[in-house]
Amino acid sequence: MKAIHAVVLTSLILLPINWQPAMTATNDPKAAKVVDASGNLRVPGDYRTAYQFLGSWAVAADQGPGSKEIHLVYASPGTAAAYRKNGRFTDGSVLVKEVFETATGSMTTGTVSHAQTLKGWFVLIKDSKNSHPGNKLWGNGWGWSWFDAANPSKTTSTDYKADCLPCHEPARATDWIYVQGYPALKQ
Amino acid sequence: MKAIHAVVLTSLILLPINWQPAMTATNDPKAAKVVDASGNLRVPGDYRTAYQFLGSWAVAADQGPGSKEIHLVYASPGTAAAYRKNGRFTDGSVLVKEVFETATGSMTTGTVSHAQTLKGWFVLIKDSKNSHPGNKLWGNGWGWSWFDAANPSKTTSTDYKADCLPCHEPARATDWIYVQGYPALKQ
Repeated sequence: MKAIHAVVLTSLILLPINWQPAMTATNDPKAAKVVDASGNLRVPGDYRTAYQFLGSWAVAADQGPGSKEIHLVYASPGTAAAYRKNGRFTDGSVLVKEVFETATGSMTTGTVSHAQTLKGWFVLIKDSKNSHPGNKLWGNGWGWSWFDAANPSKTTSTDYKADCLPCHEPARATDWIYVQGYPALKQ
Repeated sequence: MKAIHAVVLTSLILLPINWQPAMTATNDPKAAKVVDASGNLRVPGDYRTAYQFLGSWAVAADQGPGSKEIHLVYASPGTAAAYRKNGRFTDGSVLVKEVFETATGSMTTGTVSHAQTLKGWFVLIKDSKNSHPGNKLWGNGWGWSWFDAANPSKTTSTDYKADCLPCHEPARATDWIYVQGYPALKQ
């Protein structure tokens, strides 16, 4: 404990006086790396090791067999367990959806597609308290952003109502999330 | 530490004298729940929360757009990091592949398939030391088993050379694993 205290004290001494910690709507520490005090989201750097996998979507090719995109969805630790218990997403829960272009080929099980080139990420953070009413990327119970693969720390989204909500409208009844694709929420 | 010691001592007292811990080829504790001393594999109960997601395969429908199966692959903690560092799978590494039948429908992004009904699991454990030469489910550097969804603790596989290897033959050069589908191994 002494070592931890020493680190904390040293960190405080080195911080500029106007510094604020990156925080979520709920100050949930597990989401600390996802959002800053102004509500700017970023892709968490550790989601592939620290998050739990939720589910996959395969978007059919425009012509012929196979899938043109595969989407892989991860949730911050505890998100799925809390959902199974409460039937809803807890404030501060983070969802990260990777969008991949695929490679498709003939394999021993048939014509098979797999993730090949990352196009970017959708990041959502649950916020039932409307924590950032002046931020056009927050509302309807979530913070919303898309990130191109080249820049996981700066979104290209400008208004979630135009950029994000239209594609989620069919999932309005399930808090805008397509929960049917996520086996871990069902158990 | 006293409390831990007390638990260990109590456990030892209660064990039958012929008891042996479930163990892996390398006594790697992270794989302790996957294999017993005779080399019988089982599906680890906690892979969805404790393992790391590796990748997804979408098997094209026999007719029309969409995917008939989605395969989701998880690896025991540290497997991907060790592979990125060493270029090979460490002994005791466990891979779990879920095989799902899908549901396919029209969504805002097109014709999309997602995991619907679990058919079962493939489980592999890396074993470069040929630890179970008399067990027909071990060889070629791995322990191999398929599990129907109804019974994650007892395999239906009887001989990996007939049941498992044929479908993996095209991946012989990459230690029988289709590594091209696993982005986490590439970074």
